[in-house]
Amino acid sequence: MKAEIIAVGTELLLGQIVNTNAQAISQKLAELGIDVYFQTVVGDNAGRLRQAIEIGRGRADLLLFTGGLGPTQDDLTKDVLAQYLGRKLIIHEPSMAVIEEMFSARGMAMVESNRRQAHMIEGSEPLHNSTGLAVGNALEADGTLYVLLPGPPREMKPMLEGPAQDWLRSMLGEEVPLFSRLLKFAGIGESNLEAKLMDLIEGQDDPTIAPYAKEGEVSIRVSTKARTSEEADGKIDATVEGIKERIGEHLYAQEDIPIEEEIVRLLRSSRRRLASAESCSGGLFAELITNVPGSSGEFAGGVVTYTNVMKNKLLGIPMSQLEGKDAPGAISESTAAMMAENVRLLSDADFGVSLTGVAGPAESEGKPVGLVYFAVAERGKDTIVYTAKLSGGRSIIRLRAVKAALYRLWLALKA
Amino acid sequence: MKAEIIAVGTELLLGQIVNTNAQAISQKLAELGIDVYFQTVVGDNAGRLRQAIEIGRGRADLLLFTGGLGPTQDDLTKDVLAQYLGRKLIIHEPSMAVIEEMFSARGMAMVESNRRQAHMIEGSEPLHNSTGLAVGNALEADGTLYVLLPGPPREMKPMLEGPAQDWLRSMLGEEVPLFSRLLKFAGIGESNLEAKLMDLIEGQDDPTIAPYAKEGEVSIRVSTKARTSEEADGKIDATVEGIKERIGEHLYAQEDIPIEEEIVRLLRSSRRRLASAESCSGGLFAELITNVPGSSGEFAGGVVTYTNVMKNKLLGIPMSQLEGKDAPGAISESTAAMMAENVRLLSDADFGVSLTGVAGPAESEGKPVGLVYFAVAERGKDTIVYTAKLSGGRSIIRLRAVKAALYRLWLALKA
Repeated sequence: MKAEIIAVGTELLLGQIVNTNAQAISQKLAELGIDVYFQTVVGDNAGRLRQAIEIGRGRADLLLFTGGLGPTQDDLTKDVLAQYLGRKLIIHEPSMAVIEEMFSARGMAMVESNRRQAHMIEGSEPLHNSTGLAVGNALEADGTLYVLLPGPPREMKPMLEGPAQDWLRSMLGEEVPLFSRLLKFAGIGESNLEAKLMDLIEGQDDPTIAPYAKEGEVSIRVSTKARTSEEADGKIDATVEGIKERIGEHLYAQEDIPIEEEIVRLLRSSRRRLASAESCSGGLFAELITNVPGSSGEFAGGVVTYTNVMKNKLLGIPMSQLEGKDAPGAISESTAAMMAENVRLLSDADFGVSLTGVAGPAESEGKPVGLVYFAVAERGKDTIVYTAKLSGGRSIIRLRAVKAALYRLWLALKA
Repeated sequence: MKAEIIAVGTELLLGQIVNTNAQAISQKLAELGIDVYFQTVVGDNAGRLRQAIEIGRGRADLLLFTGGLGPTQDDLTKDVLAQYLGRKLIIHEPSMAVIEEMFSARGMAMVESNRRQAHMIEGSEPLHNSTGLAVGNALEADGTLYVLLPGPPREMKPMLEGPAQDWLRSMLGEEVPLFSRLLKFAGIGESNLEAKLMDLIEGQDDPTIAPYAKEGEVSIRVSTKARTSEEADGKIDATVEGIKERIGEHLYAQEDIPIEEEIVRLLRSSRRRLASAESCSGGLFAELITNVPGSSGEFAGGVVTYTNVMKNKLLGIPMSQLEGKDAPGAISESTAAMMAENVRLLSDADFGVSLTGVAGPAESEGKPVGLVYFAVAERGKDTIVYTAKLSGGRSIIRLRAVKAALYRLWLALKA
């Protein structure tokens, strides 16, 4: 099945917002085994929207719309499609009841235009909107499938994951469904990962193996068609085993979570706690860890010691270590080790992680931009210091440094 | 002039990446006074790309392509457009020289396909790529303008800002150019801002006033057509004065920078320094400040004290303040004040900023999710504590809390 995604909204054409919906919908359709051949963005204009429908119908079996279901006169998607198909708009009574109730609960007078959000194209299936007022629509007409979703991502996504996906699966009918699993990797780059899996990738047939990369992390989606999830799991497990044999020491999760979430889980299950001491990364390490919901039990705390005085006052690192002609300096292996050890002791945590280096824009202490030392101190073990020479701009270096430290911490945790 | 943006790349249709280029190009074209009527995404497929060109040519005066200029056989944009226009591909010698030099400098053998990046459609203008190897193209054929930019944003953006914009301006010819200025606001939400500027927005004609909102910040673009930048500045200044009269205490910059960058500037110009003590925001405040290049001179350091023990050990807050039946507790106005004051004293900084509250997922100390206390301590002044009741998920609450604290710090800095 060939699909086209049509996003409706002048705000997209003005560049006021980025079309993240197209990405989310594309991923979902790929998962369902539906090929997306085009994505189109058109403004809130009846003539041009009709033109986009006409072109889309000629080249796709499924037109999936997002946007233009709201209450204003600019929200035209249902109107234009109904007119194009020669169908009437009718009221979806359950949605209408929700809208009326909402207005009465807030003691607000309902404006006539709010009724528009309960509109349905005659003969379509309603798609329930669990986070908003505009009901979605799905229908088949003359061999083409049409799915209408709202524009705001927090309304669109639940509808896509729920009723829209269900409806599409029912329309795919006898086709064997696609199952997939996401594998998440750390401490390895995309090209290195691909090189190590070359034989698997080249020989792939079923399951398929698709690597994805974004800044600081690599993942692989393993997909297969199967009649049951047990059958799929069996096939995917076998492929994952092959991947593990080659790069198992980098595979930290078989679901879509960041490595810091897996770290918090490992800390929690082993009842251990973490503390951090950062210089060049400026709090990013602590920020990522504490962004994991419920991490307060596993994260004792952290310090961001930009200056030598703060390294001395907060962490007790001697000034003679940091300054002076023959001192190792703040950006050194021995300072990284002391920072990790001292923050661990100070907070009575099981692990202390430190980062010190040069994120740029200029060199520091005569050390080049991109040089980062980081250390993992563990209760009862020798502290290990790592050195990284990273490239990229300031933000990228900080992110890469923190990701590298998270990877080493993860290795220590599962050891 | 009507334009269509055509992004070429199968990775977009698979949802592997989000089409941020379409947004950046749309904004630039809006700034130039060019109307974008459609955005199209098509895969690395000659037939479908040709089809997209054909459709685009029928409905736009300018087709702006991004993607498909790289060295691989999948990179088809120049080939397909040249064929469509019945023109030859020629080599742009200066680009070829750069490619050859790069390979020889790295001691690598040049693969034939790398020559493709120096291709130009006969009769086109080369657009210099300052951050990559693929040269851009710009041409006019049968009344339609074509601009070809690379796909990677770090190559596309400088080309768009530089040679592509220059070429488009020259093609717009006698048209009066559009000038615009971005105003950045803090401490005010979109609807409140719009309400306070309602009369200006409704009465707008020239300059125009367009508000934009994204999580945690609001901005306004003021635009006007003028023959010279002086003339434009005069008209824009007058509009900005009207905006300042209404919401001047929220306007922190007249250029596209985050508030933390303005804060670092104000600290630098007044030779003052900042320190932070965070609990619920987990290092995000420090992270944003230290992400400003060169901020190390203005940021003394910070602590992330998640636990009471750390608040006691690092910041010297008495345990009797934090725990016990009648203690105010960690999440309290008085603890927020102590955190800000103590981190300021500890680091001998001029400002101390603290955040303590409940980011969720669950309530804490019997305080509800979203309740955040934050304080600004300033050398020689009374410490001020603020209370915020924020909504949203954990990440949103953290971001909103930090943005609120940054706003109050900015107010203190410019007082």
